[in-house]
Amino acid sequence: MRMYDIINRKKRGEHLSREEIQFMVEGYTKGDIPDYQVSALMMAICFQGMDEEETLHLTLTMKDSGEVLDLSEIEGIKVDKHSTGGVGDKTSLVLAPMVAALGIPVAKMSGRGLGHTGGTIDKLECFPGFSTSLSKEQFCRNVNQIKMAIMGQTANLAPADKKLYSLRDVTATVDQLSLIASSIMSKKLAANADAIVLDVKTGNGAFMKKEEDAFALAKEMVKIGKNAGKQISAVITDMDQPLGNAVGNSLEVKEAILSLNGIGPKDLMDVVYALGTEMVLAAGKAETPKDARDMLVQTIKEKTALDKFAEFVTAQGSDKRFVYQPELLPTGKFSLQVLNTEEGYVSHIQAEEIGLASLALGGGRLTKDSEIDLSVGILLHKKRGEPVHPGEAVATIFANDMEKAKEAYGKIVHAYQIQPEPVAVVHMIKGIVR
Amino acid sequence: MRMYDIINRKKRGEHLSREEIQFMVEGYTKGDIPDYQVSALMMAICFQGMDEEETLHLTLTMKDSGEVLDLSEIEGIKVDKHSTGGVGDKTSLVLAPMVAALGIPVAKMSGRGLGHTGGTIDKLECFPGFSTSLSKEQFCRNVNQIKMAIMGQTANLAPADKKLYSLRDVTATVDQLSLIASSIMSKKLAANADAIVLDVKTGNGAFMKKEEDAFALAKEMVKIGKNAGKQISAVITDMDQPLGNAVGNSLEVKEAILSLNGIGPKDLMDVVYALGTEMVLAAGKAETPKDARDMLVQTIKEKTALDKFAEFVTAQGSDKRFVYQPELLPTGKFSLQVLNTEEGYVSHIQAEEIGLASLALGGGRLTKDSEIDLSVGILLHKKRGEPVHPGEAVATIFANDMEKAKEAYGKIVHAYQIQPEPVAVVHMIKGIVR
Repeated sequence: MRMYDIINRKKRGEHLSREEIQFMVEGYTKGDIPDYQVSALMMAICFQGMDEEETLHLTLTMKDSGEVLDLSEIEGIKVDKHSTGGVGDKTSLVLAPMVAALGIPVAKMSGRGLGHTGGTIDKLECFPGFSTSLSKEQFCRNVNQIKMAIMGQTANLAPADKKLYSLRDVTATVDQLSLIASSIMSKKLAANADAIVLDVKTGNGAFMKKEEDAFALAKEMVKIGKNAGKQISAVITDMDQPLGNAVGNSLEVKEAILSLNGIGPKDLMDVVYALGTEMVLAAGKAETPKDARDMLVQTIKEKTALDKFAEFVTAQGSDKRFVYQPELLPTGKFSLQVLNTEEGYVSHIQAEEIGLASLALGGGRLTKDSEIDLSVGILLHKKRGEPVHPGEAVATIFANDMEKAKEAYGKIVHAYQIQPEPVAVVHMIKGIVR
Repeated sequence: MRMYDIINRKKRGEHLSREEIQFMVEGYTKGDIPDYQVSALMMAICFQGMDEEETLHLTLTMKDSGEVLDLSEIEGIKVDKHSTGGVGDKTSLVLAPMVAALGIPVAKMSGRGLGHTGGTIDKLECFPGFSTSLSKEQFCRNVNQIKMAIMGQTANLAPADKKLYSLRDVTATVDQLSLIASSIMSKKLAANADAIVLDVKTGNGAFMKKEEDAFALAKEMVKIGKNAGKQISAVITDMDQPLGNAVGNSLEVKEAILSLNGIGPKDLMDVVYALGTEMVLAAGKAETPKDARDMLVQTIKEKTALDKFAEFVTAQGSDKRFVYQPELLPTGKFSLQVLNTEEGYVSHIQAEEIGLASLALGGGRLTKDSEIDLSVGILLHKKRGEPVHPGEAVATIFANDMEKAKEAYGKIVHAYQIQPEPVAVVHMIKGIVR
């Protein structure tokens, strides 16, 4: 088998066999196949695509390139949730304790933030003493005992995907649907839960700007998951403005706690309930979506989810008082109000710009090794559709450096778009792919 | 400027500017841009193509990446000739002395053979003492004095093309028309003659198997040449069987000498006259194609071309007696007749198979560093359209090793295709692009 022939066959639009895909992935990971051949193949795939079988084989080969988590010690149907990433996305922090409170084991591996999007691990580290560096044994024990644990991604999770993604990233071959789907799914399959619920974001703050692309990606990933023998569904959700009102690590944690107390922002809770319904159904804990949703609503009303979150935070090394007294969490030294100058209605809030504003404050990472300031961020007071008047504050910046706050100010002003006419209601849930 | 954006723009089918193409070629040649980015771009070009302007800029940038020959010391309109390569192609050896005999300066740079195709330099080295390692001064002096000189390609001729071609060769990105055209033309423009005549081969033994592809390539190269300010035309010629009867270095030289003596094979002479006519017209030595052809015919009839060849061979270090007594040239120790088993007409002779047979005898190079046996080769007694009977010899193998001769035998038998019906006449000259 020669890599040259594999490139040439894909270039001509031919189907690659499982053996050819394995040869390529394994050879590349081992360093036997040079990156210039792999990048040429990736570009050919951007033009010729991959069919369902090829995509599955690529995903499985990348999954098998590293450790596949053995979660057999955990009792019950383990449910994982994954988001394609957005701004202000603290969904996991609210959703995981709600589902766990219903007795469904949530064994979640999470990542750190990069660029304008945040990561769940960073947010959890706002709790003093909190650790996500759990051994596999500790992780399984926690899930068995309290039904919920979150750990950082192990270094050896789908290393082939890591290497391939780095190459795609610098050769303009990232945006091919089957490649995106196989990259995400290889890691999810290596994390090895029984059921997977995907949150596929769409809108200006998401990787998939267009709704049709988000649906196509969702379908592709659900197909891979099913072909790999998993319970899987995907919810396509709006990311045309930041999710909820808080952007920035500790601010988002506080908002998650507010949500667990029953006073979460509507857009965030719409997403939480839609994803949660899928998770409860996947775990076989409810017969109908309505039943599942009702059960989830109860976990908020009865504060069982809040208590579950406190239990989880304690179990991973911090203290539950931070959950019951979130004002103890770090907050930036200065606050600065962002004032609106126009009369009208908020038509858009460029999510990416708000993410970049948070990044400018020090709340995100420019590179993988950047230090992050957990206490800074932005609180949005006005969201899409709301009326605004000149002189009114649309947002508050929390910062530790006035220069950085000014830089963020400009970005936030730029992110807000005001129009004179009222704005049509936008549904948060665009659809579900099962 | 970022290479990433250049790849991405081409991937989306956008036009690359001269600056972008220069940035890419210069950066790659210097080693600032990694090969994995360039191979991705090459693959994107395979799908999106390049327009006339992009192709010209790529060609000129590659030409300027190394030395551009200064031929200003040579008087008159210098004419160069280039063939896209075939089997049994000794055209230059016949054509150059014919044109030179008419007082037209032929300043030619030639290459060595690789794989199943031969190179002019190898053929000339059959003459004991012959050297193609001329200094530029010697080269120009010879052309001024005897109107003809052939030198090997200098190492520093279009090095960017050399590097790019090596990369394309291993990433399945060779067969894109504009890339092929710019690769050939960058070297021709660096060789810097005033007029260029291209011999674009088509058929099973050529790089361009289909006639329409050969025409497309010819048009692409003529366009580049004109845009670069050169006199240029291309003749599309048949390579569906080897050209002439001899394949192998010394056999081909002998056939060239026979041709200069007026007894050359018809197919070879058809190509020689077609290309020669273009060269004489380009040099402004004749008004009409008929006049040009008549002048060329005279050089054969009056043996002025033969004498010119002898003069040339002497000037580059060998002895003219090898030209007048070609039986002195090396010949393989053994000869072996290839016998036909069928009754009918020769419908095809797979040129590539014959080339591979010659390669098997030791007459060609598998890699750039292979030693070559100049004395071996194949003489074809039957060409396309000729009637054959069982037991009749269709070819003779000249070898120095009986095992190798047997290997070649099998390939030659395989190359010959016999059909019961007579075969339609095939014209050697498919067309001319000016």
